[in-house]
Order: sequence, then structure tokens, then C-alpha cells
Amino acid sequence: MKKHYLLTPGPTPVPPEVLAELSLPVLHHRTSEFGEIFTRVSEGLKYVFKTEGDVYVYASSGTGAMEAAVVNILSPDDKALVVSTGAFGDRWAKIIRAFGLTPDVISVEWGEAADPAAIEDYLKKNPSTAAVFVTHTETSTGVVNDLEKIGRIVAATDAVLIVDAISGLGGEPLLKDDWKLDVVVSSSQKGLMLPPGLSFISLSEKAWLAAEKSRLPKFYWDVKRMKKSALDKETPFTPAVGLFVALAKALDMMKSVTLEKMWAEYLLMAEAARDGIRALGIEPFAKSPCRVVTSAKVPDGIEGGKIVKMMRLDYGVSIAGGQERLKGKIIRLAHMGYITRPDILVGFAALEMTLKRLGYKFAAGAGVAAVEEKLK
Amino acid sequence: MKKHYLLTPGPTPVPPEVLAELSLPVLHHRTSEFGEIFTRVSEGLKYVFKTEGDVYVYASSGTGAMEAAVVNILSPDDKALVVSTGAFGDRWAKIIRAFGLTPDVISVEWGEAADPAAIEDYLKKNPSTAAVFVTHTETSTGVVNDLEKIGRIVAATDAVLIVDAISGLGGEPLLKDDWKLDVVVSSSQKGLMLPPGLSFISLSEKAWLAAEKSRLPKFYWDVKRMKKSALDKETPFTPAVGLFVALAKALDMMKSVTLEKMWAEYLLMAEAARDGIRALGIEPFAKSPCRVVTSAKVPDGIEGGKIVKMMRLDYGVSIAGGQERLKGKIIRLAHMGYITRPDILVGFAALEMTLKRLGYKFAAGAGVAAVEEKLK
Repeated sequence: MKKHYLLTPGPTPVPPEVLAELSLPVLHHRTSEFGEIFTRVSEGLKYVFKTEGDVYVYASSGTGAMEAAVVNILSPDDKALVVSTGAFGDRWAKIIRAFGLTPDVISVEWGEAADPAAIEDYLKKNPSTAAVFVTHTETSTGVVNDLEKIGRIVAATDAVLIVDAISGLGGEPLLKDDWKLDVVVSSSQKGLMLPPGLSFISLSEKAWLAAEKSRLPKFYWDVKRMKKSALDKETPFTPAVGLFVALAKALDMMKSVTLEKMWAEYLLMAEAARDGIRALGIEPFAKSPCRVVTSAKVPDGIEGGKIVKMMRLDYGVSIAGGQERLKGKIIRLAHMGYITRPDILVGFAALEMTLKRLGYKFAAGAGVAAVEEKLK
Repeated sequence: MKKHYLLTPGPTPVPPEVLAELSLPVLHHRTSEFGEIFTRVSEGLKYVFKTEGDVYVYASSGTGAMEAAVVNILSPDDKALVVSTGAFGDRWAKIIRAFGLTPDVISVEWGEAADPAAIEDYLKKNPSTAAVFVTHTETSTGVVNDLEKIGRIVAATDAVLIVDAISGLGGEPLLKDDWKLDVVVSSSQKGLMLPPGLSFISLSEKAWLAAEKSRLPKFYWDVKRMKKSALDKETPFTPAVGLFVALAKALDMMKSVTLEKMWAEYLLMAEAARDGIRALGIEPFAKSPCRVVTSAKVPDGIEGGKIVKMMRLDYGVSIAGGQERLKGKIIRLAHMGYITRPDILVGFAALEMTLKRLGYKFAAGAGVAAVEEKLK
């Protein structure tokens, strides 16, 4: 018998209470019962996004909501700035290019956070910029960007600030309204403790003005349709009803714990993970580490993919390796959503056993001991 | 305590074996375990689509796959023909218009099937037509279109034939390859006995040639990305893993029953439903009725919405009313997916009790008796 530990930065484990909801008979989506679920979900998402604005739910993965942000805000001749700190920042540029625009891209060395001053400087030189695209927590490298500062900078211009909070929402602090984040998108399978299949979008008033004028083509992703249907507590097209019902449950759980306590808990686990990594003589990778995923440099002479594979196959613990240019060079261990302290301990024990078998030299137990010390 | 009977043409009831899969812990989607599920799903969908070609799975509702068909096949200057037999045929035209094209539309009186001769005539007069969009079973009216004949006509031209089989797949015969249907899209929550949240697309070689040339913008829906990822038994973006696993189970169940037996069973239930409707002195609505949903004219003096509401609230039986121009004028009762004979009997009993309370005069028990007679 094997028990699986999902310590990957999405999908993340789903609480049994939420899984149980998924095995209930399907509701019809044009009924008062669904309307009640719709209202609970809408209120719960406002709480998690820290917004007074509506949050809409698509049946899609997170990339769908990213595409929705692009096609609802931009028009063909718009100037767009992408601030990329890794693979998911680059995805913004790929989507925008797919719709025929050529964005400017400010990239940093992978592992570093975005420089707000560079964004400020760009916007001064390019005052006609229509939108700035950033990433909240860049899952591919493990950094968090300073959205509060970036929000202040972009709010002073005519540009709409668009944030990919797919991996960060629910785990890393994000105050949509207070920080003046105009569009925030996210999805279900990370901090929100659900299986993949739902994505979210929320727009500020400034973003709605852009959406009214936007001339990129759209049908499925059209936020104006979402807004209209929401008046009747419905979605324009058949919602993923089962996931919707489960989301209502997950949001109830988050509300009862409170977001602030969740944020504090993930921070503690992140610090514990970094202590554990260092105690093994390994260097953390991210310069401005986020609290939802810890990235670490793979020791010289070991192929990162081997660590990931051995941990999964032999110990039942799934972590992630590096993507694209970081393939084989880093490992990533998540602490978001329903990942809890005992999971981190199991993860470090499995990591130690794996590293030992791969010939890496370290004081056995040192990593787990450092994690224990922080979590005690 | 109330037990719910879902006799709506989507969502449809989900078998307990499939619901149970949805409550299992989430798999990671970049693993060999998911690869095995991916293979089972791919093979199972080929069986259901009756095709040798690949079938790809999106995390979206059915409308998403319709949009995918449009943006992957058409280019900005293309001439497109929409053959509309109801609300879902009209949706093709709306999506195409949203992407800046102006399709020609052949519409019929709602309740009638498409006339293949009219399509043939149109294509003779418009030999440069790039694509013809049709509906398999038109859920809004309850008709089935003659796809075999339409397939033969379009195959003799340069046009790509694109079929919305969202409500028909699995219930109404559809032989994708034999009938030369170039693009078929469908979704999870109708004949495939799953909750909503997955949609499907399959392309013929002729369709792939169009897809290679297509110049409408796309990212999330790009079938070329789907094709590339499928080589690694993956999807380009995070799949709705839980629904994917459940789909593998549902497809296994369908294979073990066989599609041919399922088609015969739904036909029998459709005939029983029409007999029952007539025995109540009510007229079936569809001129060329499909075997997955029965539509019936609401008796004079009764508002159709009242029937639907009373059946749901007082007897736990969900059926559908009419959409758009048919609102209040017809009722629709589905027999697709996991809807079985006893469900139809319960549905007719609840319908009789409801009609009686609404003042309609008929021989009590006559509808149920006619259904019993056909199903005995």
C-alpha cells in the first residue's frame, strides 16, 4: 500500500471534506439551489481576493483566465508591458503575441524578483502603455513580486495592472483593492485546495473601462457576459457544477481559519523549508522567496529529475523539478493550500533518504531537525 | 428527505462508480500514473467518437470546444456557413461573429431538422466555402440532423464540416470517420455521464490541413499544442485531473455496455416518452425527434415554466423548459447518459401529478401506462 504526498506547487492535496462534496450527485445549474452555491462562492472569492468587486468563475485551467485577462482588456494597437520573472511571466508574453500584439518585456535573471523602479521608469518613458502584466508568486522560480509597490506605481498612470495570482492566491498576501491591482486571475488547484478545472477573474473599475473598449475577439472568455449572468446567479455557459459546489466548501473552510492565519502558517513552513534546505548544505534558489513554494539548487553532480523521480516512486512524495532553463537544476517543494506541517516533515525525510542514495554527503537527519526546530 | 431525479438534457446524473472516482485524492498530471489515465481516456474517446483520429480534452464547458473549432479552422476572410436548427445552431453563428467573420446562416423553423438539399445547393453556389457548421442533436428543440447525408455532401466539396455533438455523443448514433465529419466537438455532462467541466475535439486530416493554415488568434484552444502534448500523454495546460480520472471510468463503463446497445436503449426510451406524451393528449414538438431528449408542446393555458418548477420543487424531478422563442411553450425530458428506464417512469408520474394540479384534463395514469407498455 502506498500513501501519496502531493508537495507540488499545483495540483495540491484536497481536504477530505472537499473531496466528499465532489462525490455528491450533480446539481442542475439553473436552479435556486445552484443560485445559493453561486452566492456563497461569490462572497467567498471576494474574501479571498480582498475585493469589493465581483469575481467570476470559468470552467478552465488557470491559463484560460490569463487569456481572458488579455482578450478582455487589450485592443489590437495597444502597447503592453510584460514584467517576467520566470516561465509564467513569459506565458503572459506568449498569450499576448498569440493575439497579434507585440508586448515589451522586462525580464530579470530567474530567481530574482521584478524591480518596481524599472517598471516606473518604463511607464514614464511610455505613458501610453495600456496594460502591465505581472506575476504574484512565480512558481517556476519561487519568488514573490512586490505587488503593493508595483500597484502604487501603475495606479499613478493610465495603464491597467494585470496580475497572475494563480499560485499565490490564498497563500501569499494579496490585497486586490488596497494594492490597486486592476485585474487578478487565479485558479482552483493551488491555494484554494481544489482539483484543477476552475479559474477566476476580478476587475477593478479602471479595468472595466478598458474592458468596455477592448477590441480583441472573445466569446467564451467575455467578462461582460459573466457580469450579466451573475445578476441571475448564473454563468453564461454550463459551469463545472461539481467543482463549484466543492469550491463553496473550501472557501467556507478558509473563512473559518481566516486568510491571515493561513498566510502566517505558510510563511512559517516556508522558513522551516529554507532552514531545512540550508541544514542539508543546499542553497535556496529564490532571492526573494515566496511563502508558497521553496526552490533549492540541486547539489553539483546530481540530476534534479532523479531526485523528483526517486522521491515519488520510492517514497510516494511528489515534489517538482525545474522548468525550461532550470530543468534538472532546482527542486521545488510547495507549502500552500492543504499542505500542512507533517507533510513538510515527510517531504524532508524522503528528500534526505533520496539524497543519501544518490551519493550526496550530509549529516543524516539534519534537514528534518532544522524543520522540526522551526515548527516546534 | 428528498431524492433528486435529473432528467435534464445536461447536466445528467453521474453513476455512483464515477462519483466515487471524483472523491479520490488528486493525481499530479506530469506522472506515469496520469499518462496511463490519459491513454485510457484517449482510447475510450476514440471508441465513442468512432474515429481513428486523436480526440483532445479541454478543461472547459462545451462552448469552449465550439470556440476551439472556430478559431482553429477559420481565417479572417473565410466564408462560413452555419446550418441552424435552434439555439445551439445559433451559437455557432454568434461565436463566428465574435471573431470578426460574417457567416451565412441557413435556419429552419424550430422543431424541424436541417435540409441536406439546402446545404448541397448552397455549396454549389458558394464553392469557396471554408467550413459548414451543424448541430448533431439540437437540444433546444429535440431534433436530430442527418449527419450521414450532410457528411456525404460536404465531403464532396473543399469545405470542412464542423459538428456540435455536445448533447448527442454517446446517445445518438455518430460515426465520425465513416460519415466524414471533419471536426466533432462534445462535452462531459451529457451522454458521457460526468459532471460538466471537460470538452472534447477531434479533427480529420482535412480539418488538420485547415488548422495548419488557420489565422484566427488562439492560445488556450490551440489544437496544435494539444497534438504536441499528447505525444507525451499530457495536456499543454493543467488538465482537470479529477474529471479526467472519472472520465476514464465512465468510458470503461460505456465500452463494457457497448455504444450500440446504449443507442438502442435511448431509442426505446425516446419512443416510450413520445408514446407517454401522446397518451396524455399532448403533442410531441420535434418533427425529426432525436433519441436523447423528448420535447413536447405545453398544453394551451398552462405556462411551461410552472410545470418545470412544480416538478422540481414538489417531486424532485428536474426537466427542462423551452429556451428563447420557445420559453414557456415546450418542456424537454432527457433520456441520455445515466438516465434509465425507472427514471423515465418517475418523470412521467411526476408530470401527471403536476399537470393534474395545474388543471389540465387527461386520463390519470395514461402517460405512465403508455411508457410501461413500451418498456415492458
